[in-house]
Amino acid sequence: MIHPIPPGTRDVLPDEMAELRAITSRLRAVFEHAGYGEVWTPALEYEEVLRIGDERAAGAGYRTFDEQGRVLALRSDMTIPIARLVATRFAEAHAGDPLRLFYEGRAWRVVADATGQQREFLQCGMELIGVPGAEGEAEVIALALTALGEAGLVRHRVGLGDGALYRTLLTALEVPEDSHADLLEHLSRRDLAGLARRVDDLALARDARRLLVALPELRGGPEVLDRAHGPAAGEALEGLRVLHAALERRGISDRVILDLGLVRELGYYTGAVYEVYDPAVGFALGGGGRYDELIGRFGAPRAACGVTLDVQRVHIAQAAEERLR
Amino acid sequence: MIHPIPPGTRDVLPDEMAELRAITSRLRAVFEHAGYGEVWTPALEYEEVLRIGDERAAGAGYRTFDEQGRVLALRSDMTIPIARLVATRFAEAHAGDPLRLFYEGRAWRVVADATGQQREFLQCGMELIGVPGAEGEAEVIALALTALGEAGLVRHRVGLGDGALYRTLLTALEVPEDSHADLLEHLSRRDLAGLARRVDDLALARDARRLLVALPELRGGPEVLDRAHGPAAGEALEGLRVLHAALERRGISDRVILDLGLVRELGYYTGAVYEVYDPAVGFALGGGGRYDELIGRFGAPRAACGVTLDVQRVHIAQAAEERLR
Repeated sequence: MIHPIPPGTRDVLPDEMAELRAITSRLRAVFEHAGYGEVWTPALEYEEVLRIGDERAAGAGYRTFDEQGRVLALRSDMTIPIARLVATRFAEAHAGDPLRLFYEGRAWRVVADATGQQREFLQCGMELIGVPGAEGEAEVIALALTALGEAGLVRHRVGLGDGALYRTLLTALEVPEDSHADLLEHLSRRDLAGLARRVDDLALARDARRLLVALPELRGGPEVLDRAHGPAAGEALEGLRVLHAALERRGISDRVILDLGLVRELGYYTGAVYEVYDPAVGFALGGGGRYDELIGRFGAPRAACGVTLDVQRVHIAQAAEERLR
Repeated sequence: MIHPIPPGTRDVLPDEMAELRAITSRLRAVFEHAGYGEVWTPALEYEEVLRIGDERAAGAGYRTFDEQGRVLALRSDMTIPIARLVATRFAEAHAGDPLRLFYEGRAWRVVADATGQQREFLQCGMELIGVPGAEGEAEVIALALTALGEAGLVRHRVGLGDGALYRTLLTALEVPEDSHADLLEHLSRRDLAGLARRVDDLALARDARRLLVALPELRGGPEVLDRAHGPAAGEALEGLRVLHAALERRGISDRVILDLGLVRELGYYTGAVYEVYDPAVGFALGGGGRYDELIGRFGAPRAACGVTLDVQRVHIAQAAEERLR
């Protein structure tokens, strides 16, 4: 008799579960040691509240109803619920001090069938509230690197870009609004060949088209910042320069690859964005960025950045690294 | 600005979260030490699969759809998903040996607004597969008592009854089928006065009515087993007698109160049922029972029993006990 579970979800048996728990307890220990306190928010929230954080309700695709017929949605990330929590529960008491929060929990996304995508994620991550600019971002990136090292990885790297850079470029080059989402979608999938074909179809000057294709190809050390140019790119490039210097002072800039084509799927990032990779596997283990406007949408503006790690992917990378040793 | 979360759900801030984590790590340590291995199942399952375990999909009231329009439901307990898991993943390899599994996870129930009921639960519990009868039940009850002791409780007790006893009595006394659910519902809420009124309305002989009201009032030490009687009650009473003796041999029978009116809300229990109480608070901290037919519904019959603890309620009881000291 077959009693299937939905594609993209998993039953985890004791041996694997013990390994996942070993990873989360190491990640948690790093966050706790750095002064982060754990929070927990409901898995089901009012969809209209999640929508305040992101007009698509942050991808929260599973909707249901409460007894009064109000629409509830399963969260698709932890950052929006925590932004709500910070604005509603910490608005006054701690308005001046930085707030350091971490979480371990599940989130859910709608997936296309049979693509191997995950429908249910086990996420462990942290949010640093009230520390603006490079100082905050460097703390988060350093903690992510340390946490993954404690979880047993040695080859992991951080890809670093700016979530506003390409969006600003699209606007500055007067690319029609209705093409933005499609171009950003190709970019977020790193389909640079597909991106180039779409850009070629745009009614733009040759220089503009060349810029839209060339910028995402800039990947490497701090020298890529000198090779980059484009209208309105100055602020983002300067931010990345300052952040790279902060990472250098922490002695971790050799773990960081600048990647000017990096865009994160969620739209609330306002500055630096990053993804964590391991060369042993072909997918990101997590990521995050700066989202200085998100908490303000819930009524109490605060600078903030964070990172989330996908525990199951970290586990796969750990096993893949071990096979390579 | 107010951004509400659904009634019956909670935001948990760091101080309280650390206390909840302290409880779960102690519960987990007890289960691990006793040879139980942790499992994890998806929070969202096909509703038709959950329905195999219980015709009401085990109370799984939050329904949504996948991309193909199939109905998904948020689990309302962990026992049905674990029964499915055991039948599908352990059907052959371990058919002879007992299987000891534990879990820590959330479950969701539909609640009436403004009643203070929980919509989202943090549950930690265990399932003992393949150990029939009193031996299995005594192991589970002993572990639940130990786990709560490790979690800091000292006054906790177990109420012990038989999930089939009252149902069997209703059938044996030829109470009309369409009254059963209503009577059991009063009983599960311990509304004995309401139960008595409903029983008085039944077209039954006076002795039968007296029995239906008197049986649930039998509560106390093993002497209540001698005072109980009724058609078809012999098997359940004998089972409780054997279990009480097993608990006595383990030196824990003084922590156990026999309660012949105890029925658990979920319908899959086939024998002993139990609930954990603490005199410092007015609600059960958890419960469980024997469910020898549930795994078989998923195609691989095995005797099984288990217990689940509500971590937030254990936390409230712990704080209430401390205030009393």
